[in-house]
Amino acid sequence: MGNAKRAVILLSGGLDSATVLAVARREGFACHALSIAYGQRHAVELVAARKVAAALGVAEHREMHLDLRALGGSALTADLPVPVDRTDGEMSQGIPITYVPARNTVFLSLALAYAEVIGAFDLFIGVNAVDFSGYPDCRPEFIAAFRTVANLATKAGVEGGRFDIHTPLIDLPKADIIRLGVSLGVDYGLTHSCYAPTPEGLACGRCDSCRIRAAGFAAAGVPDPTRYPE
Amino acid sequence: MGNAKRAVILLSGGLDSATVLAVARREGFACHALSIAYGQRHAVELVAARKVAAALGVAEHREMHLDLRALGGSALTADLPVPVDRTDGEMSQGIPITYVPARNTVFLSLALAYAEVIGAFDLFIGVNAVDFSGYPDCRPEFIAAFRTVANLATKAGVEGGRFDIHTPLIDLPKADIIRLGVSLGVDYGLTHSCYAPTPEGLACGRCDSCRIRAAGFAAAGVPDPTRYPE
Repeated sequence: MGNAKRAVILLSGGLDSATVLAVARREGFACHALSIAYGQRHAVELVAARKVAAALGVAEHREMHLDLRALGGSALTADLPVPVDRTDGEMSQGIPITYVPARNTVFLSLALAYAEVIGAFDLFIGVNAVDFSGYPDCRPEFIAAFRTVANLATKAGVEGGRFDIHTPLIDLPKADIIRLGVSLGVDYGLTHSCYAPTPEGLACGRCDSCRIRAAGFAAAGVPDPTRYPE
Repeated sequence: MGNAKRAVILLSGGLDSATVLAVARREGFACHALSIAYGQRHAVELVAARKVAAALGVAEHREMHLDLRALGGSALTADLPVPVDRTDGEMSQGIPITYVPARNTVFLSLALAYAEVIGAFDLFIGVNAVDFSGYPDCRPEFIAAFRTVANLATKAGVEGGRFDIHTPLIDLPKADIIRLGVSLGVDYGLTHSCYAPTPEGLACGRCDSCRIRAAGFAAAGVPDPTRYPE
């Protein structure tokens, strides 16, 4: 991969970002994975990210720590309860409590900084506008606006480089994402999606993220490798 | 200030951001200052930020730690030498080595997250397109693009709120910034601008930032309160 174009892939350790990494590899990029640890609940995600990066093969995997809890404001970063056992109707209403203020803006900014340092112009992020339609920073118009910022904000952009923000999953239902990943050799048993894992790091099976994930495996006709308690 | 509109002010502890905080106060905002510690050289800036916040009076002052050194790429975050004793011609050529990749994008993203948590729509940042014309993320077109991102990225924006990014210093020469701050009661003796401070936290007097600052005081006809070695 010595002469391959470099790309930065935001890798959370979840199902979506693992699939995105596999897509970036298939497209021939030398993959520089960036994992951002930003709260108290997701240490287990970082472990998953390391396993995914090692299994899929990356040129480099960097981890940054970001104490978004200092700003508060979300069930994923503050001491608010993660909702469980919600009905589909409840899940689709409005912007979820698990929304983290400006999260993807912050993550893409850090990915942009990393990209500029390593001379990359391709950023990959696993946003999805289907299952989590309530998140404003998963929409195509947000991604397009951030791309404009990237080209204006950077030395690389001023010097004529053009950044591209790749969102290969943005229109895919979860089942299609899973089928895509399986076709690319992703081992979803290494990934972690749960918002409220047990102390041992197992998925709760009851939060929105667990339920969307489990429904995706069922719809894809793929055995669910997720480990649940009991 | 109980009913005042809230604003988030990016406060580095430098001369510019202290002036910006004073401007935001004059405009009647309840000021929520955010300081972001991002590298090895600027611990002394955080101390200055605390003094400035206390002296000018803020509703709240938050500090975040961000290890941009994990991404490398700048004399301000990596182990590259800060240039000193450059001529004016050298200083004005191209993008300085002290440019930190995507820095203002990252900082504005974090300010945006903080603003959304506290219900603020006004962000203040001390960018300046005069003295540091080489920094792409100090230009008005960058600020305008980030404002578009802010309105698209956030729950508050989707719900109809409109963010504003205030850049009161963007067109001002350093001397005018200093005159403005003095008129608003800023004690510049509390601020810190040096890129390469001594172990005791004194300004080196030789880096670009020190030289621009000293020239600004001279041009403004204001006594320079900066403490230099010897």
